[in-house]
Amino acid sequence: MFKKILIANRGEIALRVIRTCKEMGIKTVAVYSKADAESLHVRFADEAVCIGPAPSSESYLKIPNIISAAEITNADAIHPGYGFLSENAKFSKICEEHEIKFIGASAEMIEKMGDKATAKATMKAAGVPCVPGSEGIIEDYDECLKLAKDMGFPVMLKATAGGGGKGMRAVWKEEDLEAAWSSARHEAGAAFGNDGMYMEKLIEEPRHIEIQIVGDSRGKACHLSERDCSVQRRHQKLTEETPSPFMTDDLRKKMGEAAVKAAEYIKYEGAGTVEFLVDKHRNFYFMEMNTRIQVEHPITEQVIDYDLIREQILVAAGVPISGKNYFPKLHSIECRINAEDPYNAFRPSPGVITNLHAPGGHGVRIDTHVYSGYAIPPNYDSMIAKLITTAQTREEAINKMKRALDEFVIEGVKTTIPFHRQLMEDQRYTSGNYTTKLMEDFVMDEKYKDEE
Amino acid sequence: MFKKILIANRGEIALRVIRTCKEMGIKTVAVYSKADAESLHVRFADEAVCIGPAPSSESYLKIPNIISAAEITNADAIHPGYGFLSENAKFSKICEEHEIKFIGASAEMIEKMGDKATAKATMKAAGVPCVPGSEGIIEDYDECLKLAKDMGFPVMLKATAGGGGKGMRAVWKEEDLEAAWSSARHEAGAAFGNDGMYMEKLIEEPRHIEIQIVGDSRGKACHLSERDCSVQRRHQKLTEETPSPFMTDDLRKKMGEAAVKAAEYIKYEGAGTVEFLVDKHRNFYFMEMNTRIQVEHPITEQVIDYDLIREQILVAAGVPISGKNYFPKLHSIECRINAEDPYNAFRPSPGVITNLHAPGGHGVRIDTHVYSGYAIPPNYDSMIAKLITTAQTREEAINKMKRALDEFVIEGVKTTIPFHRQLMEDQRYTSGNYTTKLMEDFVMDEKYKDEE
Repeated sequence: MFKKILIANRGEIALRVIRTCKEMGIKTVAVYSKADAESLHVRFADEAVCIGPAPSSESYLKIPNIISAAEITNADAIHPGYGFLSENAKFSKICEEHEIKFIGASAEMIEKMGDKATAKATMKAAGVPCVPGSEGIIEDYDECLKLAKDMGFPVMLKATAGGGGKGMRAVWKEEDLEAAWSSARHEAGAAFGNDGMYMEKLIEEPRHIEIQIVGDSRGKACHLSERDCSVQRRHQKLTEETPSPFMTDDLRKKMGEAAVKAAEYIKYEGAGTVEFLVDKHRNFYFMEMNTRIQVEHPITEQVIDYDLIREQILVAAGVPISGKNYFPKLHSIECRINAEDPYNAFRPSPGVITNLHAPGGHGVRIDTHVYSGYAIPPNYDSMIAKLITTAQTREEAINKMKRALDEFVIEGVKTTIPFHRQLMEDQRYTSGNYTTKLMEDFVMDEKYKDEE
Repeated sequence: MFKKILIANRGEIALRVIRTCKEMGIKTVAVYSKADAESLHVRFADEAVCIGPAPSSESYLKIPNIISAAEITNADAIHPGYGFLSENAKFSKICEEHEIKFIGASAEMIEKMGDKATAKATMKAAGVPCVPGSEGIIEDYDECLKLAKDMGFPVMLKATAGGGGKGMRAVWKEEDLEAAWSSARHEAGAAFGNDGMYMEKLIEEPRHIEIQIVGDSRGKACHLSERDCSVQRRHQKLTEETPSPFMTDDLRKKMGEAAVKAAEYIKYEGAGTVEFLVDKHRNFYFMEMNTRIQVEHPITEQVIDYDLIREQILVAAGVPISGKNYFPKLHSIECRINAEDPYNAFRPSPGVITNLHAPGGHGVRIDTHVYSGYAIPPNYDSMIAKLITTAQTREEAINKMKRALDEFVIEGVKTTIPFHRQLMEDQRYTSGNYTTKLMEDFVMDEKYKDEE
């Protein structure tokens, strides 16, 4: 087993990893930027090394500084957390070259899954369903029609040079295709000077549902069921839950099998997530694979009594997994508490937390690196805490989340607590009948504003 | 279901009950003494009524004030928590007379179990093993010898007027009995002017192991397995765990069956605990029954995914239990964090908490009513928080407790955190091979003193 792990990250995930290391009797090294000197991950690690000033490019992304810190402190492994260098093939390779175990995917694996086209081709080869689409640019309308008929309506026409919805058309039936083709090409040509078009199957009422997997060094993989991450704002997840209210036993079995097949096909080692889009007919399509721990991993831990960071460390140390799949026995929800103002387009709200009081009690878990008096630096991601509630049923987990949000006191900065409080009462959410479109027309209600 | 519950208690248990009520959609009424005006249970309840000044006799024990508060606020039930009026037969009866549901045992049940002699006789009749002993005062040495032979050595001779160990003799074999009988009688006569003696079976290497039970209004009961509460100082529990490291499947089955038999024999309604002494041969003996929720109930909740307060409320509302027994799937430990100085004979240390930062993350639960700036009143029990860790194994739960204790910051008052930190490294504790005698020769090590 590793003797000392350097955590190449900051914030709650650095603390999360340190906690498990401590519990496993492994020494820890924190690295930090000058802006993070007062952070809890620095305080709770056995050693801490300052690796540069605040911009991430000068510290948390600066590979030589991190490798030096590992060498100075004699760390025999590096845990990259999420973000920063966690999916950086070069970093994984450099760690390997320095005989420091990278607790994550190999450089080859990161490259394979990091490039979307390669990842999709690999998944297709593994037999995992992908969003059907044209191979490159469509020659003419005849090819367009044939493609649409082959993949079935509705389809989405997209400009290769596209962006901002320009040159994009959703087409629901054959008789509308020709007009859409013409107008989209025309629009794309005018907007981008390039009228090249491609086509994808239109995913109706899409849900973002991901499957957690763990693979070991023998090439064996298992899945830990799903997380529903459909509540997103501009592709940023806001709250996640497991099980997905849209899931059926049959669909879970199929998606779980597909994810395990994908992981075993590429001989994936470590914890990873296979993200799928699921349409209203419960067809699922591979979106991407994340070769790292996810922000939302705790909800999986809560419903299957599992420590995913521990498992990452064990697998990296060469311990084989049992190979059995895990199924949720409870319901768990995570709300990401960000220092952002939900009443002002979720604008970041850095500053000093003048008072912090976290909720507690039955079924409540909090992962946070902040405390009363902590100054949130403006340089990083605005997430300051993850509030996780777990109960026998979805309704109970929602009720628990409401009371925990009501108890949560964070003064000095704006937070997303009022947003989550409102979401937990929103009929679209409580019904379980939501898609990735939920946030498109979400309007904050004044009544959830903190009573200050 | 109840519309509004008044919580006739303070501190963490008042907050605990309020939380579950909120999650169940039940309105809550807090009552508080003037000393507790700034307590969180007052802040988080829907309504709060001041019921008098600090001495408990003038507020939390003052039945007319509590009944008035319930009537003014239209509460249809009262949850008494633990301590105070929770096992007060008169209060239970008065609630009933006022048509307010008492969420606890009936007056009759409290009386039956509150008197030790009656409780023991009842349990004997139910077929539950009790500590063998003489019926009243022993006539002469012949009777003494016969009794000792019947119950088997070792035995304990005790003075009926006894106290402080005077007139008490442990006798391990027959040849020592006569001398012990004479000297104990002589000592008792000199000390108390009364040389009456009785005898009990001596429990070797005793452990305090209790079984949680729940009974419903139909007279059906189930058990929720055990809690080991052997770590006690002057009969005050300091830390508890489940499962007991001393437990076997066979013993759990027997003790569980005995507890359910006891509960069903007396048609016990509500949550209750049957406390047993278990000797080194794994014989178990009824000690007493607590007709209320226990301080240490969360460890049971953690290992069986259960909300005991919810269950108390449901049962009080007439909802039948399923009747199935519950067995621990995980290991959970509770440390009672008291505002006491473990380096100074656990002397209470009331005062203002100038800084509080609670640990969090995977497997950590905290139940507390205190916060940064909270003034601990000198009038009450010194417990300020319960720290509970839960993991797959006992070793992991202990390691988690160590790291959680290391993270816990409470400034301004002395606490028992250093004691628990030391206990978690104590070989007698970690081996699982401890008895109620553990604290008798426990000496605090300076190295666990807070680094301040």
